[in-house]
Amino acid sequence: MEKQKINIVDTTLRDGSHAVSHSFTTKEAEDIAEGLDKIGVSIIEISHGDGIGGSSINYGFSKVPEMELIKGARKKINNAKLGVLLLPGVGTIEDLEEARRNGAEVVRVATHVSEADIGIQHIKYAKKMGMKAVGFLMMCHMGSSELIVEQAKIFEDSGADYINVADSAGHMVPDDVRERISLLKKSINIPIGFHAHNNLGLAIANSIAAVEEGATYIDGTCRGLGAGAGNAQLEVLAAVLNRLGYDTGIDIYGAMDVAEDIVEPIMQRPQVINTASLMLGYAGVYSSFLLHTYRAAEKFKLNPRDILVELGRRKMVGGQEDMIVDVAFSLAQKKKETAHS
Amino acid sequence: MEKQKINIVDTTLRDGSHAVSHSFTTKEAEDIAEGLDKIGVSIIEISHGDGIGGSSINYGFSKVPEMELIKGARKKINNAKLGVLLLPGVGTIEDLEEARRNGAEVVRVATHVSEADIGIQHIKYAKKMGMKAVGFLMMCHMGSSELIVEQAKIFEDSGADYINVADSAGHMVPDDVRERISLLKKSINIPIGFHAHNNLGLAIANSIAAVEEGATYIDGTCRGLGAGAGNAQLEVLAAVLNRLGYDTGIDIYGAMDVAEDIVEPIMQRPQVINTASLMLGYAGVYSSFLLHTYRAAEKFKLNPRDILVELGRRKMVGGQEDMIVDVAFSLAQKKKETAHS
Repeated sequence: MEKQKINIVDTTLRDGSHAVSHSFTTKEAEDIAEGLDKIGVSIIEISHGDGIGGSSINYGFSKVPEMELIKGARKKINNAKLGVLLLPGVGTIEDLEEARRNGAEVVRVATHVSEADIGIQHIKYAKKMGMKAVGFLMMCHMGSSELIVEQAKIFEDSGADYINVADSAGHMVPDDVRERISLLKKSINIPIGFHAHNNLGLAIANSIAAVEEGATYIDGTCRGLGAGAGNAQLEVLAAVLNRLGYDTGIDIYGAMDVAEDIVEPIMQRPQVINTASLMLGYAGVYSSFLLHTYRAAEKFKLNPRDILVELGRRKMVGGQEDMIVDVAFSLAQKKKETAHS
Repeated sequence: MEKQKINIVDTTLRDGSHAVSHSFTTKEAEDIAEGLDKIGVSIIEISHGDGIGGSSINYGFSKVPEMELIKGARKKINNAKLGVLLLPGVGTIEDLEEARRNGAEVVRVATHVSEADIGIQHIKYAKKMGMKAVGFLMMCHMGSSELIVEQAKIFEDSGADYINVADSAGHMVPDDVRERISLLKKSINIPIGFHAHNNLGLAIANSIAAVEEGATYIDGTCRGLGAGAGNAQLEVLAAVLNRLGYDTGIDIYGAMDVAEDIVEPIMQRPQVINTASLMLGYAGVYSSFLLHTYRAAEKFKLNPRDILVELGRRKMVGGQEDMIVDVAFSLAQKKKETAHS
């Protein structure tokens, strides 16, 4: 039987950018892109961690403008496709045009799991420019399988080439992934991708589960570099998929070397699961909630971890940071009542 | 429905000892044991990384004699049981008696997956001394489910209180674990435990798979501290099992604090998956093979990774390090023939 082909999408130079405070230099981007191209990665994604246009006071400034990194990497890539991430509202159509001029061939348009409609125009515009366009649904643990199918169809109808399911907070367990990917597989006619985070130590297992249910594009990063506890560690992912009999096209020894010789020396800290990233995964919330949560915990004399769990229970999403104080207040009230009863 | 109780066995002060070059001080052992006891761990295992009696030129000398660590920890443990590991041939009955006098209540008798018979006397002797005795099968990826059942029955017949399946090289994927644990569950009448290594990034997923198939004792270590790529990270394991509805009895915030405040400051390096540990897991061989493999690779101008894979294919086990040169020689011959054909 022919082996199932799995496309490895590397996002070291995008999600990994979070983990180095957006400090990649042009030389680093060139070296990493060159290495990734040689080992057989299908798509190399390069952008600010929050997508093109993300460099800002809100999301953190890039040391080197991402368009410079894209131009640098472009020169080193011969086989892989060069991709960018775009979050509508953070990045614009103008940013996408510029990325296209600089050689980007793929754009992944990322929206919250329930808001694919804000990405329709970007998918269409990318297709018009001759790009491969991907509908990228974030925080998929917050959406039921049915919601994900509904939203994926919005992207599919807009012309997306594939749909990417992202476990942005690293909250899913393999069964969560299986449920979502298997229904999606039955419901849409374009390929499916999966993007894992390792907050619960399950990035590799969730990626395998996605593949077993029919996903054919899997994200990874060298050494797992990424926001929170990081992504699926690319060299591990490639080795495991190889062991399981899939064809990733990746030179796995080469992947180990790119991770160890090129990426590791650049890292500012090892990509491990600490209390903060574990709590984000456990609660299922964005890392942008941490600072506000610690402040509110101090103010109301609460355990910040209880606040995070409550925020997750209420399915709070990015942009709702102002609600954290309200949640803390109500938790503190409840605590007082319990103490008095 | 009542929640399934899962016993968490912490082996930070045993398998974790490998990762700090057996340098634990009495104070460190006391602090860690005290913390683990408070958060609700069922068994706290303390020994040299290769079990009691392991401190030697072969396996590395302990900075503080393990019996001192055991005595220190004993004073701090009120709820958990204090355990030791014993590899017949490394540790002796005399070592076990001494550990018992110092307060050890549990011994895990560890043998290669096919050699339970060398542990029979130790299990029997431990039971005679009133200890809880565990049959611990190492390198279980090398044994079929049927072999594991056969060997587990040897331990069961000797009086073992439970059987522990260990993925010592971190080579298994969740389906490998399911196959072995499910057949064992049907075949023996005592509880089952599982010990994971994270070389393929699957320690947490494999532990969940074991639990889902009926294992009720799961090993973990704070921050994943352990040989190779380390063990299942205890605080992550507890959080995930809690999310899945199991009763571990662990205070998960407390577990995070013990890992972050007590264990992390002691660590000599972060517990990550690098090329060496990934290759050990991918090939399914012991870490003791590394040095000999690098030497042989240099001598025969081979990629050391090809040698490791071949060693795994031939199911080489600890003690067979002298065969590595032979394997390298035959690989080099083959390479020459291929080049000339």
